[in-house]
Amino acid sequence: MTAAKIAADLTRLLGPHKVLSTIGERLSYRYDAIQMGVTPLVVVLPESTADVVAAVKAAKAAGLPIVGRGAASGLSGGAAPSAPAVVISFTRMTRLSIDAARREATAQAGVVTLQVSEAAKPHGLIYPPDPASFRTSTIGGNLGENAGGPMCFKYGVSGDYVKRLEFVDENGDLHHLTRDAYDLAGLLIGSEGTLGLITEATLRLTTPPRFTRTLMSSFPDVGAAAEAVSQAIAAGAVPAKLEFMDRACTNAVEDYLKIGLPREAGALLLVDTDGDDLETVETELELVERACMQQGGTVRRAATDADAAQLWRARRSVSPALGRIRPQRMNEDIVVPRSVLSEVVREIEALGLASGFHVVQFGHIGDGNLHPNILFDPKTESEDGVHALAHDIAMVALRHGGVLSGEHGIGSMKLPFMKEALDAGTLDVLWDVKHALDPLERLNPGKVLPAVDLPALTGAAHA
Amino acid sequence: MTAAKIAADLTRLLGPHKVLSTIGERLSYRYDAIQMGVTPLVVVLPESTADVVAAVKAAKAAGLPIVGRGAASGLSGGAAPSAPAVVISFTRMTRLSIDAARREATAQAGVVTLQVSEAAKPHGLIYPPDPASFRTSTIGGNLGENAGGPMCFKYGVSGDYVKRLEFVDENGDLHHLTRDAYDLAGLLIGSEGTLGLITEATLRLTTPPRFTRTLMSSFPDVGAAAEAVSQAIAAGAVPAKLEFMDRACTNAVEDYLKIGLPREAGALLLVDTDGDDLETVETELELVERACMQQGGTVRRAATDADAAQLWRARRSVSPALGRIRPQRMNEDIVVPRSVLSEVVREIEALGLASGFHVVQFGHIGDGNLHPNILFDPKTESEDGVHALAHDIAMVALRHGGVLSGEHGIGSMKLPFMKEALDAGTLDVLWDVKHALDPLERLNPGKVLPAVDLPALTGAAHA
Repeated sequence: MTAAKIAADLTRLLGPHKVLSTIGERLSYRYDAIQMGVTPLVVVLPESTADVVAAVKAAKAAGLPIVGRGAASGLSGGAAPSAPAVVISFTRMTRLSIDAARREATAQAGVVTLQVSEAAKPHGLIYPPDPASFRTSTIGGNLGENAGGPMCFKYGVSGDYVKRLEFVDENGDLHHLTRDAYDLAGLLIGSEGTLGLITEATLRLTTPPRFTRTLMSSFPDVGAAAEAVSQAIAAGAVPAKLEFMDRACTNAVEDYLKIGLPREAGALLLVDTDGDDLETVETELELVERACMQQGGTVRRAATDADAAQLWRARRSVSPALGRIRPQRMNEDIVVPRSVLSEVVREIEALGLASGFHVVQFGHIGDGNLHPNILFDPKTESEDGVHALAHDIAMVALRHGGVLSGEHGIGSMKLPFMKEALDAGTLDVLWDVKHALDPLERLNPGKVLPAVDLPALTGAAHA
Repeated sequence: MTAAKIAADLTRLLGPHKVLSTIGERLSYRYDAIQMGVTPLVVVLPESTADVVAAVKAAKAAGLPIVGRGAASGLSGGAAPSAPAVVISFTRMTRLSIDAARREATAQAGVVTLQVSEAAKPHGLIYPPDPASFRTSTIGGNLGENAGGPMCFKYGVSGDYVKRLEFVDENGDLHHLTRDAYDLAGLLIGSEGTLGLITEATLRLTTPPRFTRTLMSSFPDVGAAAEAVSQAIAAGAVPAKLEFMDRACTNAVEDYLKIGLPREAGALLLVDTDGDDLETVETELELVERACMQQGGTVRRAATDADAAQLWRARRSVSPALGRIRPQRMNEDIVVPRSVLSEVVREIEALGLASGFHVVQFGHIGDGNLHPNILFDPKTESEDGVHALAHDIAMVALRHGGVLSGEHGIGSMKLPFMKEALDAGTLDVLWDVKHALDPLERLNPGKVLPAVDLPALTGAAHA
C-alpha cells in the first residue's frame, strides 16, 4: 500500500488535523535523540484511546507496521522506525489526574514525565522516576523503555511505579491490566511497543523526602570511587543518587561550564542522601564521606541548596558538554556488578584509546549502570567503526557478567548485540511470547529481539 | 499411559530413591494447605536441575501434565493437581549461597523461605518477604504464587526481590533470565508453574532495620480503623506492618490464647514502624498513634520487645485459632482500595450472616489486602454453599474496584471467578501468552486462567 493511500484512509477516519502526510512532516518523525530511522509512511496524532484503536485497526487492515512514539528523547532507537510504518505519536494524549487519597496519578501516554510530579506537588506527593530527559520525555516512552534515572538506586525504575495499565493490542482491541498473574503489564513495560501500545497508566506516587544532603568527591582513579561506593553501602548508607563521571567526562563538562571541576581526577562522584529525618540523612552522608576519604577521595560537601544545585549542574550538563566535542554520539547503557566496575571502566578506556574515538564514561554507579559514550563526527569518522567499538564495549559488559541495558532499552542500537546476550533457546522462547501478542511482527519491527537468523557479531567479523 | 509405566520410566532415568510411585505415597501429594486435588500419577523428587530437565522431558514424551510443588503451604490450590499428573516436588533442591558483597542470595526452588534470612543474618542482611508460612514454604512456591506477607506494604512482594531466575520450559530446556525486556522472569513469577518450572532464583538482600516499634489499637468499628490507617499514611508514616482483625477474628484468637484481647472491639489494628533512626521510627509510631486516637481508637504501645512479641502472637495465632472453630476453611485474598474497606468489610460480614457460615476477616490493611475466611465442616455443611459464598465475596471486591488475589494466587480456588475479573478479550491475550510457553497446556492445567468456554458464574446461577 502506498503512503498516500494509508494517509487518505486515516484522514477519512480521524480527520485531517490528526494525520501528517507530507514528506516534510514525515521526515521529522524518523529519529529519536540519537538514532536515525526510516521515514514513516504516515504519522497519526491521536487525541484519545479511541483514535489509537482506529489507527491500529486501519494499519492492520492495510498490513502495515506500527511504531509508537512519545517525545522521541530515547537513546537507543526504540522510537525510530526500522521499516516504513504508520507512526503513532502520543504527544496529544495528555490527560492527567491525581487521586491524592489513593496516592495515584493516572496519565495518558503523552503526558510529560515532569508534569506528573508537578501535578502531584500541591498534594504533597512526587513521582520519583527521573530519566535525564524528564522535562520532555513522556510516560508512554518511559514505560516503553522502562526508563531509569539517578533516583533509581534508592527508588526503583519507571515500571516499579505502575499499578494499572491500559493498552491497545495489534488487533486494535483495548485492554485494562492490573499487576496480577500473568503480569502482562510487566511484560509490556520495557518492550518498546513491540507487544502492544500503552495508552494510559496509573502510577504510584510517594511523599518527597523532607531533607536532602549533597557531596562531591574526586578520586585518583575509578577503582577507588567504586570501592568507596561499595564501602558506603556496606556500612548502611542508601544514597538517593550516586553518580559517576570519568576523567574525560569531567574535562568535557569543565570545558563547557568552567566551574573549577578537578580536571586531573580519575573519577568524580556526586552523592545525595535523603529522607524525612535530618539526623539519618546526615549520618548517611557521613558514612559516604568517610568511605570516600578512606579510599583517597577529596570531599566537598554542599553547604546550601544553591551549592548543591551547582554541584549537580555538572552532572546535568554532560549531554550539552559532549555535544560540543562531536556532533553525534553513541550512548551505551551497560550494567555490571560494582565489584568489577573499575576493571570494566579501564578496559573500555583502553578500547577507546585503541580505536581513536573520543570515549567518555559516566553513569549511575550505585547500580553499576555505566554510560560509555562514543563521540563522533559522521562526516569525518566511520560509523562502522563506531558500531564495532560499541559492540566491543557491549562484549566487555557481557564478559564481566553484566547486561546490555540498564534504562535506555535495546532499541535498534543494541539489537545486534542481543544474540550474544541471550542463549539461542531463550531467544526462541522470547520470540514465542512476541508472536503470541504480535503474530505478524507488525509492532515496531526490528526492535528488542534480534531475528533468529541474524548472524551473531563476533570480534573477528568487524575487527 | 498408566501410572505404573511413567513411574517405571522415571525410575529408570533417575533411580528409585527419587521417584514415589505407591498409592500411599502419591495420595500425600494431592493437596496444598487448604485445597484437595487429584492423586498424582507419580511424584518425582529431583535433587538437581538436571533431574528436573530429565523428568520434564519424560513427562513430555509421555504426553502427561506436570505440576510443580514446594512445601504445599499454599492456600489457593496452586500445587494441588487438577488432573492426573507427574508431580515434581522441589523439597530436595535446597542449595543456597550468599554473596554478601553483591547482597544476593542464590537459592534453589526447594530452599525454605526462612533459611534465606537465616543464611543472610551472619552477613548483616535479611530477605524481607515474609509470607505467614515462611517457616515451611519454599522460595519456588513463594515465586510461583508471588507471595506477600505483613512486610509487603513497606518492602514489596517476593517478585520484587528477584534479580535472576533459572527455569525449565515445557520442552525440558533450561533458561537463565535477568529482569530485562522482555521481562519473562516477571511473567513466570506468580504464574503458578503454568508457564515453566522455576528451579533457582537469585534474590536481592537488604539490611535489617535497626529499630522496630509496635502498637495495637482497638476501634469501635472497621471504618474507624481504615480511616486511622489512611490518616497515618497521609501524615507521612510508612509502617513496616499494618495488620487488621475484625471482631469475629479477634474473638477466635482470644478464645484460643486467652490473653485479654478486647472482644467487644469492631476492629483491631497491629502496627510496626521500623528504620535505622530511632527518632524517625518513634515519630512514625506517634503519627499512627495520633491517627488511631483521633478515630476513637484505644492504643496500647509495646513497652519492650517481649511485649511486642506478645502483641504479634495474636496475629500469628489466627490460623490455629480458626482451625479450632471448624475443621476446614476457604481463605480469600481480595485487595480493595482502602477508601472502600469499611464498606467491603461490612458487606462481607452481612453476606456471612445471611449465609449461616462462620466468616472471619483479617489482613494487611495498609495494602487493602483482606482475607475473608469461610470456616466450615465438610461433614455437616454444604461445600457448594461455601463456594457460592466465596464467589459472592469475590464479587464484592470486584464491584468495589478490587482484585481477586493479593498474595495467595488464583490457583484452582479462584479460577471460576477469573471470568468476571478479566474481560473476554484480555483473557484471550493471556491464553495466547500461555500457549506461547505451553502450547499443549501440560503445565499445571486448570490453574490461573479459566478455560475460555468455562461459563461465567452469575449471582443467579448459585443463589
